[in-house]
Amino acid sequence: MNHPVGPIDASVVPRYSGWSTFARLPRLDEVTNFDLAVLGVPFDGGVTYRPGARFGPAHVRQSSRLLRPYNPVQQIAPFDVMQVVDAGDLAVNPFDTSGALAAITSRALDLTSGGSRLVTIGGDHTIALPLLRAAAERHGPVAVLHFDAHLDTWDTYFDEPYTHGTPFRRAAEEGVIDSTGCVHVGIRGPVYSDRDRYEDQVLGFQIIGAEETEDLGWRGIAERVKARLGDRPVYVSVDIDVLDPAFAPGTGTPEPGGLTSRELLAVLRSLAGVNVVGADIVEVAPAYDHAEITGMAAASVAYELICAMTPRPVSD
Amino acid sequence: MNHPVGPIDASVVPRYSGWSTFARLPRLDEVTNFDLAVLGVPFDGGVTYRPGARFGPAHVRQSSRLLRPYNPVQQIAPFDVMQVVDAGDLAVNPFDTSGALAAITSRALDLTSGGSRLVTIGGDHTIALPLLRAAAERHGPVAVLHFDAHLDTWDTYFDEPYTHGTPFRRAAEEGVIDSTGCVHVGIRGPVYSDRDRYEDQVLGFQIIGAEETEDLGWRGIAERVKARLGDRPVYVSVDIDVLDPAFAPGTGTPEPGGLTSRELLAVLRSLAGVNVVGADIVEVAPAYDHAEITGMAAASVAYELICAMTPRPVSD
Amino acid sequence: MNHPVGPIDASVVPRYSGWSTFARLPRLDEVTNFDLAVLGVPFDGGVTYRPGARFGPAHVRQSSRLLRPYNPVQQIAPFDVMQVVDAGDLAVNPFDTSGALAAITSRALDLTSGGSRLVTIGGDHTIALPLLRAAAERHGPVAVLHFDAHLDTWDTYFDEPYTHGTPFRRAAEEGVIDSTGCVHVGIRGPVYSDRDRYEDQVLGFQIIGAEETEDLGWRGIAERVKARLGDRPVYVSVDIDVLDPAFAPGTGTPEPGGLTSRELLAVLRSLAGVNVVGADIVEVAPAYDHAEITGMAAASVAYELICAMTPRPVSD
Amino acid sequence: MNHPVGPIDASVVPRYSGWSTFARLPRLDEVTNFDLAVLGVPFDGGVTYRPGARFGPAHVRQSSRLLRPYNPVQQIAPFDVMQVVDAGDLAVNPFDTSGALAAITSRALDLTSGGSRLVTIGGDHTIALPLLRAAAERHGPVAVLHFDAHLDTWDTYFDEPYTHGTPFRRAAEEGVIDSTGCVHVGIRGPVYSDRDRYEDQVLGFQIIGAEETEDLGWRGIAERVKARLGDRPVYVSVDIDVLDPAFAPGTGTPEPGGLTSRELLAVLRSLAGVNVVGADIVEVAPAYDHAEITGMAAASVAYELICAMTPRPVSD
Amino acid sequence: MNHPVGPIDASVVPRYSGWSTFARLPRLDEVTNFDLAVLGVPFDGGVTYRPGARFGPAHVRQSSRLLRPYNPVQQIAPFDVMQVVDAGDLAVNPFDTSGALAAITSRALDLTSGGSRLVTIGGDHTIALPLLRAAAERHGPVAVLHFDAHLDTWDTYFDEPYTHGTPFRRAAEEGVIDSTGCVHVGIRGPVYSDRDRYEDQVLGFQIIGAEETEDLGWRGIAERVKARLGDRPVYVSVDIDVLDPAFAPGTGTPEPGGLTSRELLAVLRSLAGVNVVGADIVEVAPAYDHAEITGMAAASVAYELICAMTPRPVSD
Amino acid sequence: MNHPVGPIDASVVPRYSGWSTFARLPRLDEVTNFDLAVLGVPFDGGVTYRPGARFGPAHVRQSSRLLRPYNPVQQIAPFDVMQVVDAGDLAVNPFDTSGALAAITSRALDLTSGGSRLVTIGGDHTIALPLLRAAAERHGPVAVLHFDAHLDTWDTYFDEPYTHGTPFRRAAEEGVIDSTGCVHVGIRGPVYSDRDRYEDQVLGFQIIGAEETEDLGWRGIAERVKARLGDRPVYVSVDIDVLDPAFAPGTGTPEPGGLTSRELLAVLRSLAGVNVVGADIVEVAPAYDHAEITGMAAASVAYELICAMTPRPVSD
Repeated sequence: MNHPVGPIDASVVPRYSGWSTFARLPRLDEVTNFDLAVLGVPFDGGVTYRPGARFGPAHVRQSSRLLRPYNPVQQIAPFDVMQVVDAGDLAVNPFDTSGALAAITSRALDLTSGGSRLVTIGGDHTIALPLLRAAAERHGPVAVLHFDAHLDTWDTYFDEPYTHGTPFRRAAEEGVIDSTGCVHVGIRGPVYSDRDRYEDQVLGFQIIGAEETEDLGWRGIAERVKARLGDRPVYVSVDIDVLDPAFAPGTGTPEPGGLTSRELLAVLRSLAGVNVVGADIVEVAPAYDHAEITGMAAASVAYELICAMTPRPVSD
Repeated sequence: MNHPVGPIDASVVPRYSGWSTFARLPRLDEVTNFDLAVLGVPFDGGVTYRPGARFGPAHVRQSSRLLRPYNPVQQIAPFDVMQVVDAGDLAVNPFDTSGALAAITSRALDLTSGGSRLVTIGGDHTIALPLLRAAAERHGPVAVLHFDAHLDTWDTYFDEPYTHGTPFRRAAEEGVIDSTGCVHVGIRGPVYSDRDRYEDQVLGFQIIGAEETEDLGWRGIAERVKARLGDRPVYVSVDIDVLDPAFAPGTGTPEPGGLTSRELLAVLRSLAGVNVVGADIVEVAPAYDHAEITGMAAASVAYELICAMTPRPVSD
Repeated sequence: MNHPVGPIDASVVPRYSGWSTFARLPRLDEVTNFDLAVLGVPFDGGVTYRPGARFGPAHVRQSSRLLRPYNPVQQIAPFDVMQVVDAGDLAVNPFDTSGALAAITSRALDLTSGGSRLVTIGGDHTIALPLLRAAAERHGPVAVLHFDAHLDTWDTYFDEPYTHGTPFRRAAEEGVIDSTGCVHVGIRGPVYSDRDRYEDQVLGFQIIGAEETEDLGWRGIAERVKARLGDRPVYVSVDIDVLDPAFAPGTGTPEPGGLTSRELLAVLRSLAGVNVVGADIVEVAPAYDHAEITGMAAASVAYELICAMTPRPVSD
Repeated sequence: MNHPVGPIDASVVPRYSGWSTFARLPRLDEVTNFDLAVLGVPFDGGVTYRPGARFGPAHVRQSSRLLRPYNPVQQIAPFDVMQVVDAGDLAVNPFDTSGALAAITSRALDLTSGGSRLVTIGGDHTIALPLLRAAAERHGPVAVLHFDAHLDTWDTYFDEPYTHGTPFRRAAEEGVIDSTGCVHVGIRGPVYSDRDRYEDQVLGFQIIGAEETEDLGWRGIAERVKARLGDRPVYVSVDIDVLDPAFAPGTGTPEPGGLTSRELLAVLRSLAGVNVVGADIVEVAPAYDHAEITGMAAASVAYELICAMTPRPVSD
Repeated sequence: MNHPVGPIDASVVPRYSGWSTFARLPRLDEVTNFDLAVLGVPFDGGVTYRPGARFGPAHVRQSSRLLRPYNPVQQIAPFDVMQVVDAGDLAVNPFDTSGALAAITSRALDLTSGGSRLVTIGGDHTIALPLLRAAAERHGPVAVLHFDAHLDTWDTYFDEPYTHGTPFRRAAEEGVIDSTGCVHVGIRGPVYSDRDRYEDQVLGFQIIGAEETEDLGWRGIAERVKARLGDRPVYVSVDIDVLDPAFAPGTGTPEPGGLTSRELLAVLRSLAGVNVVGADIVEVAPAYDHAEITGMAAASVAYELICAMTPRPVSD
Repeated sequence: MNHPVGPIDASVVPRYSGWSTFARLPRLDEVTNFDLAVLGVPFDGGVTYRPGARFGPAHVRQSSRLLRPYNPVQQIAPFDVMQVVDAGDLAVNPFDTSGALAAITSRALDLTSGGSRLVTIGGDHTIALPLLRAAAERHGPVAVLHFDAHLDTWDTYFDEPYTHGTPFRRAAEEGVIDSTGCVHVGIRGPVYSDRDRYEDQVLGFQIIGAEETEDLGWRGIAERVKARLGDRPVYVSVDIDVLDPAFAPGTGTPEPGGLTSRELLAVLRSLAGVNVVGADIVEVAPAYDHAEITGMAAASVAYELICAMTPRPVSD
């Protein structure tokens, strides 16, 4: 295999210059093969409060211009080891949720047909369901590591089964996830009733509440997460509202009391040995962002997820 | 007693829809009895730097639309146990501070005449004084648990004895608070001289500085707070600037180095067994807020205060 | 009939204080009869670019607090002559456009059952269709005076016939509007092809382009508008993007080169003798507003529309 | 007389560098004599809606850094002809309106004791009254050319006679203005009742409504203004809300339908031959500004006022 | 020649989706030939006040997503008649102005080598000089139609001859422009001295001041402009600050009293018969923009310039 | 020596009133001697991404109005012990980096000629180099305590050796720093390659990564820092981007995962016994700030640095 095509060289093209691709990586059409694709899915038809995540992919790309190739904490240069590409946006029908979901699964299957993996930038959390369907088709039911302020295992909302509050319930019902390995991290805030957590538990999920971070620290969270995931194939789904609104104001349903970006990034870095088969980062709503701080946090999350998915050299 | 009237059902009326009452609760005039009232006091005539807290009540109400009824950390559904209402705003004269203070005490006494309790949304911190006067009339001198970046026990400012920097000194002088049980949490930033803290101490207050949070953690703060409060009747006064400006930019005298919202909410949750007889949340200045992050933090503070004031079932 | 209940008295309750109803008018449930209702319809499921008009009604209400009762240019005090009320928001299903449309027509018929008239605050422009259906049921096909940057007579978008770009085509097809009396004002910006205007013309509409304002002035526009409307029953539909983005940044599909608010308000004032049977003001997207300037423009538009709909004393 | 000390040389000190004085002019203490002083009065204790004009002077100074010395339309270099200085801020008691008013008059008399003139930057419109008192002491009752969305001739508000809505009524009552020469420009928006304009008329004022600008143009306004003022000594008072909110969002009581900055500046330039004895520019509330556009408009207004007050060479 | 490749079809790919190219046009590398290229030049090393125009090209592209293909006022579909492409950004050295200028000229010559024409998006106004050098190499000295608040014919600034305030003086000195056909439109605001305009005049320029717009209207400006340009080859240079700050806050040296976007677009449309050989739109500084209103104005300017450069069918 | 002239008395002049000097301290020209000067250096010609730090000094001054004279944590009143002055801005050529650097060194030597010390407010990080040159001339090679997200020991960028990414490499090469005592705190984010940290290490620096804060806490950091610095003369350089973007959005190259302001201030307070001979606080870019939170953080950093540089009373 040829050496991967990496990001645009910032000593030739200043970071504020040039096409806006994720991390200034090549587009899908600029390479012949790829190991990991970053896909934008600008769909926010499942939103229940502040809409606008449809502008998320463009915003995260623009906010990713400062990402550099070498991760000194993980001591890895993901774009040297893998061919990573920006697969652009998947255009989906904003008025037809089920059509959109089908298109997402289909595109995800296309992009992973050759063993490649996918990191998706939303869009709202509804898109996790079709992405999990595709992941399950490739890997069997996957464990979900879910970072969010909210459980997203509600049932219906205004009779609609497919919204940004329901993907993991639907996924559990459909059998595309392995509920024995799923865990929510960062959950907080009031809910409708005590049934919310009960039903979540019945579905098989575990919860690490944001308030537990004070005692556990990121190391404690990482330990519990990894114990839960085991060696299952894992899908990581990051709702940017897992961060406190101070760190991520640009989102649809913010909830005070969240994680700091330092904590979140540390937990993500701890996934280096986990078998992460796919990931998403969702719910960035740029109209509520300021100075790209939410976009930059999301871009860093995507970058650490890519690093976590980068094969490590095998020592002999 | 009838079952309390709770918030508007979000499965019928979307959260962005409908009248803006606190947590979408009923108005005072929609129920016949109530246990706890949320009152807005849009007065900012005591401000010394950035004004605008007069818009605080409307902003916190609008920012409270995401609050749901069940608190999973405290495992309580306050609006099921108590009838909580939004008592609207008290209209006070913006040009007559002493008239405004008298009106506030009077209204607070009205709303607590039947044993009900009151959570007030400011407005600036000046309003704590008339609220303490009313609390003392109901309960005798109260211990004050005061979250703030500033002591608010200064004497006069430009010869004015009643400003947002003086309520607790006036309250101590008037004997409406029990200084042996008072504690400031989150104090930080430079002051005028070493006399500031000395005089505060002479008045009987204790101080837990924001910088101590690093060593104490929220648990340590909670322990010291509860040890100080004992079983006294307690009034909780939360200046939103107790939070770091990252978490609460929308306030009049921000001070770097503050608490996180996660820490503040945790300390508030620890008050479940404390005899909280009244509370306020003040100094939200919406013109400086962004994406409602300050308003949402204040709404969550009010919610946790209400939960702390909710009677627990007696186990037999 | 009793004297109408007017806005809250600002010499008793400061304008920043008190419940957020349109122009601080009474709620529907506070009066026994009414002549004109202001209804919020927080629906933005038909948006094709920037969403967020679901927050429009709350924002316009909050931005309407400075409205006073007497219109010195029109020399009329609408709230003295008519009982005007705020009918609150109509809660509609965000995931079911046809259900939402049906509910809007139904509610509009309810509110106009006794001969009352309706001014609706959106929400996106999709809502004009069900409002026109209701208007036609009351008055027969109505002439539409349509202020907008865009024609909104497109056909389908992503196969969806009911979007914010199509209400007037659907209305024409359904026969609920009298196309011989319809006129668009403020149209500008590039379109898909020369068929756009052709098809619009075939439907019977006339166009006064924004660029014509330079020659016509508001008086010229008003003359052409009134000549077109004649003595038909008229429905006025104002998309806030008829204003230049400088005057109304808080909207979903801004287009440079628009009207000033001074021009728009002048044209609206010229409608005093026209038989306006209903009106809407739509597409306020608060996430993109600044300092409420869009909200205040929309509130002023609604106020002038109400004045235009106020009966004039008959001179003898 | 020595050549006046002008602004800092921008070819030596970049405009973003150096102390923030109005137009980068010298401070009062840096010169021995002066012809015209620019004074900041950061008082907003008379505000009835959005406060914050206390930050106006600092904001207008910072926004005035781009002002250059030569006015090509008026063909005059005011800082060459007169010694213009920044007299800094007058510190007034925020909690004592009558004390503040007395201090303002006193300081204005000081600064005009040697025949110098004064341009004051507010602060809210309350400050016009003490400034008019001082002007009258120097020049006898003055004609007022008043640019504003609002009449500011209301009587009391919450029993307070001295607010930002009342200065010109108080001034008329006190006889410090010559009502036969007074005119309001830019008035618009609804008022409390038809008595508002009637009472204003009784006090002797004339009104040029903002809506008349469409027919009159700036030339027509200028003609009517100058006909009204005659050769009286004139005080010009500019409330920045005379501009439409698009041009001046950073103010306390915005009103759509206002003047453009191009129109306002043109009318101000027409005052070259008028005997302007003093002026103010008030109601800049920076918390609501964006990108300094309101501050820059106010700085330009102040600059044109200074130019209008600059003696013209006498041709022989 | 094949039919040109036009913008992405918005009925397949929603406007918020997909790569961010100007007007969603194809990239240069996606076609084999082109008639007109849109080039980004993210250089702001010549800025004297607020920097940040380096982010201009990315911002204008993102703000151009709403542009549609048919111009109904000009009745032309430019992308049907010409192959228009987005040539991406030219990466230039931010620390080496003369190197950057050389690179710009070189790239401009490349892109116009086959008779194609160029519309450039800045970047600051410094870039007009190398673009004029290239234009002169292709067409001989060109007449410049210059829209701006400022003359940009200053000499040096801090000894630097190449800044955003000097391109047209340098161009005149170098003989790359035909000063007998040059005209500035929209000039306003104070300058250093009366020599500024004198020297500009000596260089051969004519000035249409922004304040003249009140009398001339856009038609009068267009007439004077076209009379001045005659049948010379014309280069149009648009500094976005020609617009009033209300319409274009996102720029480096705003000046109140400017043109409206409606006026500017009308003048640009009047150029349909003029021999426009090249154009630029510069000085968009996104950090100061709000809700993309400046970006959208700039995108519309670029669109109208492209339309003006589109060949008209020859009637027989 | 006379008692130092302290800040303006806030009981006489409200904090929002009066000239904008750092902490409302006297200007250099208002005193005869001084112990410590605060100097603004509005230079941002070395920026590689978001420019605008040229407006940093004015912004930090305006944001410093709430600073009070007594530091209760350090129990010291720096302005009582030392004469601290605001030395204004050093005007440097924005187009000539080497000239600017020379001017900075020269001015720094002037201001420290009598044994005084200097705290500089940038401007971008390029200015640390000439400040270190001056410090070395006074004290010999200094240890650098460097707070930053980035190493700033890169070599050249676009062939330019003097940028905001290179000051410490140049300083090391020139021998003006004592690399055996240097330490970076808060480093994080991806870099170009593993050589970045290697080369930094070769230069002699130590790194405390931001991610280590989770384990170390501020006390651990402080211990490692002080162990590293020893009793060397120390120069402290604080890039405001050492803070997480939530705490300091107003900067040029933000990086998620940073320090909180509480942590940073605590570490700075720990320097009380260290021989700090000079300091800077750089990279505040106001165009990206919100509600002055970045400016206030920077002002607090400067204040704590001044406190750390304040002589302690010698106990006998």
